Amino acid sequence: MEGDIAEMGKYIGVGLTAIGMGGAAIGVGNIAGNFLSGALRNPSAAAGQTAMLFIGIAFAEALGIFSFLVALLLMFAV
Amino acid sequence: MEGDIAEMGKYIGVGLTAIGMGGAAIGVGNIAGNFLSGALRNPSAAAGQTAMLFIGIAFAEALGIFSFLVALLLMFAV
Amino acid sequence: MEGDIAEMGKYIGVGLTAIGMGGAAIGVGNIAGNFLSGALRNPSAAAGQTAMLFIGIAFAEALGIFSFLVALLLMFAV
Repeated sequence: MEGDIAEMGKYIGVGLTAIGMGGAAIGVGNIAGNFLSGALRNPSAAAGQTAMLFIGIAFAEALGIFSFLVALLLMFAV
Repeated sequence: MEGDIAEMGKYIGVGLTAIGMGGAAIGVGNIAGNFLSGALRNPSAAAGQTAMLFIGIAFAEALGIFSFLVALLLMFAV
Repeated sequence: MEGDIAEMGKYIGVGLTAIGMGGAAIGVGNIAGNFLSGALRNPSAAAGQTAMLFIGIAFAEALGIFSFLVALLLMFAV
């Protein structure tokens, strides 16, 4: 058995960051899903809530991009 | 016992990235599911919300594609 | 087999912090999704609850940023 054990941990850590991206996608899905559900029930109000939809998506997506950033830092910077 | 332990970690990490893709699929499913639920209740409004459906799917799908990108980087670039 | 086993643990720990970011994103998604769901049902009340939406998002987002901070501290400060 050879190889660097720290490198092994690094690669496992990179894989684990994908769980953060998955969770962010669940959050984004929840926001957009609820928007569509409400917009199809009351289409006249949909245009007024589009800004809130994008603000909500931005906050959830940011956490997924933080996870991606951690993956890139682990792979190429540390 | 022989073999490179860093390679072992790499393969486990690649497998873990699939959790991110699974989470993205849950998010996409939530969006498209809510769209269909609303569109079948009020079909006349469905055409006006198709753009929002695709925008929402794009944000959730992007996080799954980031996970896939991390898997490819782990396998072929690191 | 060479390498520092403490470093291995550090990198795995960094990967695990992404679970915190994913959970925070699920929370943000739940808050923004429920706001949108209610705002589209009763749009005249939405403006009055926008402050509460941002307060809720801020508290959930803060926990994701704490996870990100822990990842950065593990990688660069410890």
